[in-house]
Amino acid sequence: MHTNSRSALSNKSYISIDALSVKIIQEIFILTHKMSKMSFVQTSKILKGKLVTLLFFEPSSRTFSSFSAAVKKLGGTTIEYQNPLQTSSSIKGETLEDTMKVFENYSDAVVMRHFEKGTLKRAADAVKIPVINAGDGIGEHPTQALLDAYTIFQTTKSLSGLTGLMVGDLLNGRTVHSLLKLLSLYKDNTIYLLSPKQLKLEKSFIEYIRSRGVTLIEITKQEEIPTTCNFWYWTRVQKERFTNKKEYELLKNRFVVTPDLMAEKGNKKMILMHPLPRVGDIDVRVDADPRAVYLSKQVKNGLHVRMALLSLILG
Amino acid sequence: MHTNSRSALSNKSYISIDALSVKIIQEIFILTHKMSKMSFVQTSKILKGKLVTLLFFEPSSRTFSSFSAAVKKLGGTTIEYQNPLQTSSSIKGETLEDTMKVFENYSDAVVMRHFEKGTLKRAADAVKIPVINAGDGIGEHPTQALLDAYTIFQTTKSLSGLTGLMVGDLLNGRTVHSLLKLLSLYKDNTIYLLSPKQLKLEKSFIEYIRSRGVTLIEITKQEEIPTTCNFWYWTRVQKERFTNKKEYELLKNRFVVTPDLMAEKGNKKMILMHPLPRVGDIDVRVDADPRAVYLSKQVKNGLHVRMALLSLILG
Amino acid sequence: MHTNSRSALSNKSYISIDALSVKIIQEIFILTHKMSKMSFVQTSKILKGKLVTLLFFEPSSRTFSSFSAAVKKLGGTTIEYQNPLQTSSSIKGETLEDTMKVFENYSDAVVMRHFEKGTLKRAADAVKIPVINAGDGIGEHPTQALLDAYTIFQTTKSLSGLTGLMVGDLLNGRTVHSLLKLLSLYKDNTIYLLSPKQLKLEKSFIEYIRSRGVTLIEITKQEEIPTTCNFWYWTRVQKERFTNKKEYELLKNRFVVTPDLMAEKGNKKMILMHPLPRVGDIDVRVDADPRAVYLSKQVKNGLHVRMALLSLILG
Repeated sequence: MHTNSRSALSNKSYISIDALSVKIIQEIFILTHKMSKMSFVQTSKILKGKLVTLLFFEPSSRTFSSFSAAVKKLGGTTIEYQNPLQTSSSIKGETLEDTMKVFENYSDAVVMRHFEKGTLKRAADAVKIPVINAGDGIGEHPTQALLDAYTIFQTTKSLSGLTGLMVGDLLNGRTVHSLLKLLSLYKDNTIYLLSPKQLKLEKSFIEYIRSRGVTLIEITKQEEIPTTCNFWYWTRVQKERFTNKKEYELLKNRFVVTPDLMAEKGNKKMILMHPLPRVGDIDVRVDADPRAVYLSKQVKNGLHVRMALLSLILG
Repeated sequence: MHTNSRSALSNKSYISIDALSVKIIQEIFILTHKMSKMSFVQTSKILKGKLVTLLFFEPSSRTFSSFSAAVKKLGGTTIEYQNPLQTSSSIKGETLEDTMKVFENYSDAVVMRHFEKGTLKRAADAVKIPVINAGDGIGEHPTQALLDAYTIFQTTKSLSGLTGLMVGDLLNGRTVHSLLKLLSLYKDNTIYLLSPKQLKLEKSFIEYIRSRGVTLIEITKQEEIPTTCNFWYWTRVQKERFTNKKEYELLKNRFVVTPDLMAEKGNKKMILMHPLPRVGDIDVRVDADPRAVYLSKQVKNGLHVRMALLSLILG
Repeated sequence: MHTNSRSALSNKSYISIDALSVKIIQEIFILTHKMSKMSFVQTSKILKGKLVTLLFFEPSSRTFSSFSAAVKKLGGTTIEYQNPLQTSSSIKGETLEDTMKVFENYSDAVVMRHFEKGTLKRAADAVKIPVINAGDGIGEHPTQALLDAYTIFQTTKSLSGLTGLMVGDLLNGRTVHSLLKLLSLYKDNTIYLLSPKQLKLEKSFIEYIRSRGVTLIEITKQEEIPTTCNFWYWTRVQKERFTNKKEYELLKNRFVVTPDLMAEKGNKKMILMHPLPRVGDIDVRVDADPRAVYLSKQVKNGLHVRMALLSLILG
């Protein structure tokens, strides 16, 4: 529907943002923009007759519903599983590979979330149909990276020469890791990193991103945030990663966006993003700020990016 | 599809029967009747391309499936959540308002059930898309009231000048409260109230309904049921409202409909309704009585009323 | 769509393979073959406007998704319930009969799985719409028998004059029981039975199947498997049937298919089947053998058989 030539994504799995290139990202973004303009009459032909299985082994509402809506808005149908550990053959001791091979017989693609890093790669290797990673534990969440990057791109019209800020649990935040990797495909980007010292980005990862040309600057206080950012990418401290609840309580709201902070450190053109859910780390009074896109554009872009991706893979 | 002029319900939330007027009820009932006659070819155009999210924080089979069927029979698609507390961002501490705003980006409307009274109003206030109340704890269940009223109307062709009987847990029964409020929009209605004395309708509520012109008569024994009723509205004693299980056992089947009671106290034209589930409070031998509509007309009307409502709001 | 004359299955429930005859099986198989060749454009008209409720009281992924896919590929829509014990009126004490009667008002058919033998018959007796058995405890799983038989038929072009082998938990394996009953409708079949002595087919059942003309030969070691089989039907030892976990561990992998066994005891034309899930009872190295159909043809046939069945019942 979108080009005569086959997409490089056609019939491929999307497990890691390592599969992306500047060219592929451009292709996805062009189609994402089209998706946001198309009517249901137009989109609903794209996946007509296609069946996509949503297999979620970890709680999710946002990503699950975003993918479910994307398939349905494209005219496809879904088979949906949430927490299949409790309701499926998994409890009878079946291997992941067998489960995947069974679904391969019914489905044109599988969208999967799993609590264990690396599982998505195994799942994709087991079958010939495309598998899309909707999050694998502390591993990757590669469609989130695409929607985050697209949201930045909407404002800046480029992913090069940017200044950004990333805040929160940079140690465990897979969305942070993926977005950093994606931005490292582009030139002249500078990212400020702000986190409690227990939740800093791993040294080896910092070195890796730097080696790919991104300037990373670690800061320790909100006072140090530069006023020149194109975007702020705020994240919550993830309770589920802590065994020590006292430590969590201590760290959870170390950094909070308030209207004051937006006024002091923000500039007019920047956007404030958050992968959600937030848990107090952005003051609700900030929601009314037009620069706050986490509950509006960013979520909607998630739908359109996933529609574009499904179209390129299955259309 | 149904009229040239926009409905008063168009793009509105439906949270409480306080939003109803005699005129709006008439509009809904006319369309409900049409829905019951229309083929799938006709209905399936009405919500074509619309996405309705079903968000159920409390167990439900009847209401959930009724709404799900209603959307699908109108040609729309659903995103479905049951017990999202266990499977969604809620467990990560997200506020209801944030959850609603996220779904607003994907959905044309949200149908929601919640265990806590008042939550539906908060949910509707958080977003610009219509929100439909599918039950909020001991609060309201306003589509049930509509289907109950429609079922009465089918037989009597009027909602004025009626004599009715309501039985069971009148204290906690939200369907009873809603139906009483709805009937109080009409003239010359008389309702007999029969319940264990621990489960009587609250005094203030009785006064409120009386002040709106309904004659309420409290009785204490089945023997006192008048033979002139247009309808009996029987309800179960709700186990989940009791902390003391002995008290529940004592009260649960104080009042039971039997074929004998139907013969003695019923008249030929009346109907026997129940919001379901029943738990022994209507003897199964009564099911064969043509006046028993709780497992047939009343359920089917639920589907058609919800189809009408969704059409008026979204069509 | 498939014939001018009404099918004998039209608008009927399918609870037990006792309802099958050689003629009905032939009708299903002819349509199953057609289903495997038809495009979505063709199939999607068959259940247009039909609503099928999937009501699963016991964990399932394979059967649930197979039925869900079947309905959707035929252009129908589903209302889906998994573990309704936790999410429905059942927890409020509603009877199965009431639940079924409620769904009858919304649905054109119900596909149901239940953990208790005999429940499906009760469910079908409660309503006028067709009910399809998707497994009732240690009772029957009659669509599995059809897909198993169809998979054999694909290779042999006949269900008479066959030699087969059945292995594993023959005592509790409902798929074994159903397939044996189905094969007993045909002539000159010989089935070898291999199981731990604690899990042998019940004597009375053996006698019953023999009385219907099938030659049953019990063997006790893999060495005794004849090389003349048309099919092997391997099954797992079902952990969930054991209270004594030590006994389970002892028995679970008494019999295992390996490449060596396939080479020694298999012949060129035979097929190796398994109802899945497997738990070590077929070595994964066997998967690459073209005779291994359990993760490919057998699963796909499940989809097509269910599409055929739904068409004959509802089309």
